[in-house]
Amino acid sequence: MHFEALDTLKALFSNQMSVAPSVLESHSRDESYPESHLPDVVVFAESEADVLKVLEVARTHQVPVVPFAVGSSIEGQVVPVHGGISLDLSRMNRVLQIHQSDFSAVVQPGVLYPELSRQARPYGLFFAVDPGADASLGGMASTNASGTGAVKYGTMRDQVLDMRVALISGEVIRVGAKSRKTSAGYDLRHLFIGAEGTLGVITELTVKLHPLPVAVAVAKVTFESVQDAVNCAVTVMGAGLSPERIELVDARAVQAVNQYKGTHHPETPTLWIELSASGEVLLRENLEILRECCMESYATSFILAREESERRELWESRHHAFYALKRLHPEHDSHTTDLCVPISRLPEVVQHTEELCKAHGLDAVLLGHVGDGNYHVLFHGDAKNPAQWESILQVSDLMVQKALEVGGTCTGEHGIGLRKRKHLTQEHGDLIPFMRGIKHLFDPQNLLNPGKIF
Amino acid sequence: MHFEALDTLKALFSNQMSVAPSVLESHSRDESYPESHLPDVVVFAESEADVLKVLEVARTHQVPVVPFAVGSSIEGQVVPVHGGISLDLSRMNRVLQIHQSDFSAVVQPGVLYPELSRQARPYGLFFAVDPGADASLGGMASTNASGTGAVKYGTMRDQVLDMRVALISGEVIRVGAKSRKTSAGYDLRHLFIGAEGTLGVITELTVKLHPLPVAVAVAKVTFESVQDAVNCAVTVMGAGLSPERIELVDARAVQAVNQYKGTHHPETPTLWIELSASGEVLLRENLEILRECCMESYATSFILAREESERRELWESRHHAFYALKRLHPEHDSHTTDLCVPISRLPEVVQHTEELCKAHGLDAVLLGHVGDGNYHVLFHGDAKNPAQWESILQVSDLMVQKALEVGGTCTGEHGIGLRKRKHLTQEHGDLIPFMRGIKHLFDPQNLLNPGKIF
Repeated sequence: MHFEALDTLKALFSNQMSVAPSVLESHSRDESYPESHLPDVVVFAESEADVLKVLEVARTHQVPVVPFAVGSSIEGQVVPVHGGISLDLSRMNRVLQIHQSDFSAVVQPGVLYPELSRQARPYGLFFAVDPGADASLGGMASTNASGTGAVKYGTMRDQVLDMRVALISGEVIRVGAKSRKTSAGYDLRHLFIGAEGTLGVITELTVKLHPLPVAVAVAKVTFESVQDAVNCAVTVMGAGLSPERIELVDARAVQAVNQYKGTHHPETPTLWIELSASGEVLLRENLEILRECCMESYATSFILAREESERRELWESRHHAFYALKRLHPEHDSHTTDLCVPISRLPEVVQHTEELCKAHGLDAVLLGHVGDGNYHVLFHGDAKNPAQWESILQVSDLMVQKALEVGGTCTGEHGIGLRKRKHLTQEHGDLIPFMRGIKHLFDPQNLLNPGKIF
Repeated sequence: MHFEALDTLKALFSNQMSVAPSVLESHSRDESYPESHLPDVVVFAESEADVLKVLEVARTHQVPVVPFAVGSSIEGQVVPVHGGISLDLSRMNRVLQIHQSDFSAVVQPGVLYPELSRQARPYGLFFAVDPGADASLGGMASTNASGTGAVKYGTMRDQVLDMRVALISGEVIRVGAKSRKTSAGYDLRHLFIGAEGTLGVITELTVKLHPLPVAVAVAKVTFESVQDAVNCAVTVMGAGLSPERIELVDARAVQAVNQYKGTHHPETPTLWIELSASGEVLLRENLEILRECCMESYATSFILAREESERRELWESRHHAFYALKRLHPEHDSHTTDLCVPISRLPEVVQHTEELCKAHGLDAVLLGHVGDGNYHVLFHGDAKNPAQWESILQVSDLMVQKALEVGGTCTGEHGIGLRKRKHLTQEHGDLIPFMRGIKHLFDPQNLLNPGKIF
């Protein structure tokens, strides 16, 4: 990076920038992508005006800018592969407004979603998207994140009403409307959701909130095989019970959670199914229907967690499963898949995965948001053992191919980043020229998070 | 249009094309836009291959193409203002697949939404978007249509999983995935939803279906004033009852419906509120909460319609309100607004509208999907009386300005078409250069529905 650019940044951001090795290092990697790359400088923006100043320096000196908040991406989205400025938005972390009767909130991009839910709680509301990590709203919009709540409430795409976005040109645009609906011209809001910071920097979001459910219970349902559990999930969704969450954890995942959390869940394939209702009577009725569905699907046990503390602990375990699994093999590197298929095809796709792993002698863990057909397989191995690692990547590729064959997608919620670029070509090769054209419209010099998606 | 183009079309489509005056005339207008323009020829596509042939002729001879199915647009979207080919897709009207356990259907663009719901019914499912007219799915996607069901199920934007789109280049692209979620690159699906046929021709859609509600009732709730009714709608939404529908009809609208349908609803501002539940017990509980909300909001009566026939008749009345209103003044032209605002701002915006109408001595009718902040005002007058018509357009403009001031949009569900181009400039003037850039990417010669949106 040019000295002049750095000098300009220093003059503008004395206390809000750093070139300290530890700061550069912490902005060089994400939570899962194996490679890292140092930025030249980290700037901590505290306002939209700061963001615009950074973009001006970038534009003037042709320096890449990579938006960053928590660094919880999975596919390398925040890794500054071409160096330049890591634009840290974590200090833009204020919930600006909560509109109780509009069921919405206006937030800065660095707000973490648990914090938004915490602030919405006194209004009887919560924010419904809950990825595993304590992610920021801006980052979550940028990868179209979801989580366990998506089966009922949808993904980030369904939650964002309106955004302010700073463009590399120095312009700030508003995409969307504060109202629930709009049909006003081409929908640019959805272009920026999932754009992984390659088109502009999100500086403000208006998002939906939802009423906190009144009566809630979680069923812990065990099975002899993953296949039985998956079939049960398909049945439950077909019964129209509209669960709040329906999560699959396989035996290895439960084992990891038990070790990490000191819990004693039976180490066998399990569905954790949360139901809610507007009253206790109805909840009991629905739980009875659920129990019948599960028993018909060869469940081996069906235990209810009714206490809030127990439910919270359960979902915390689920949210930390990724870290628990990594902890289980601290010496290993890990590789996660993020396939999503039509739910009716899930049993066949999961069986295909199991057969592949067996054939390749791979130790893999399966967990996922099976209610919407999205599931993750976490592989682990020694990245310095080329044969083993090659095998992991090969199985992963074959799994993608299978998901695409049944009409699914290579990524349900993690996005493309660096790692899935070749899969995007497989899935939407015909669209890539148009995506590049759109990129060129907003960022003709390819300064915003270059190297990602394409 | 060039003779050679017409000759080529004749050779390709002998039985599937027409230049008969009556056919041209029926493709020259939509349901509400005051001006019409004849196409040079109408081609009835029966397959995607037919669509591609038409696009090839258009490309070769630089002829505009305007997609058409039912002609139920409101803002002039299907009017071929530059002549050329009206591409009629109404014969592509097959429901190709219904996937019961995926809650989805694959349809051709000419399928009418009531037909999709009819075919889904044996599976216990229905299609949730219901604009007033018997619109086609392709047209509905192209304007991001919604209707009374949007308050619970969202708009077309929330229903379309996947589309095949024929481009002017001759390429057919697939946007989206058959799975419930995807985060694979820029979201082009949402670009084509609401693009009003200006970017490509939709040739197939995969859409969500929803389980038919089990127990349903409609409350007919009357008020002394529109203000009271609007305030009540805001209260009901805040109570988290998640109604299937919540529709406002003012006294004049009820009067029109009564005359059109021979019904005897009290001719006073009224909310029609549909609640559903998974059982009778819960439904009764929710209806009681609803009754309390309404009574606290100064309702003057609260009457339940429990029979399916009665409910059906009610919603038919609502869906036909637009036609009923036009029938009331057959000698007049009409002008409809389609504002949508954050629901908390609805009382103030409606009051503003009422004051404007009074100040300008205008006879206007108010109805709308007030649960999501979307409401329509239907003006009628003699378009040949310039003073009166000018007054209508002036009030309409002031209403748009007010809606934008409170964070709303000039169109909740009808789109931009020809009529709202200036309002799009007011609302998203900063985005129009980018919209034009996107248009240029997909249709560099401006042959697809030219003159619309911008």
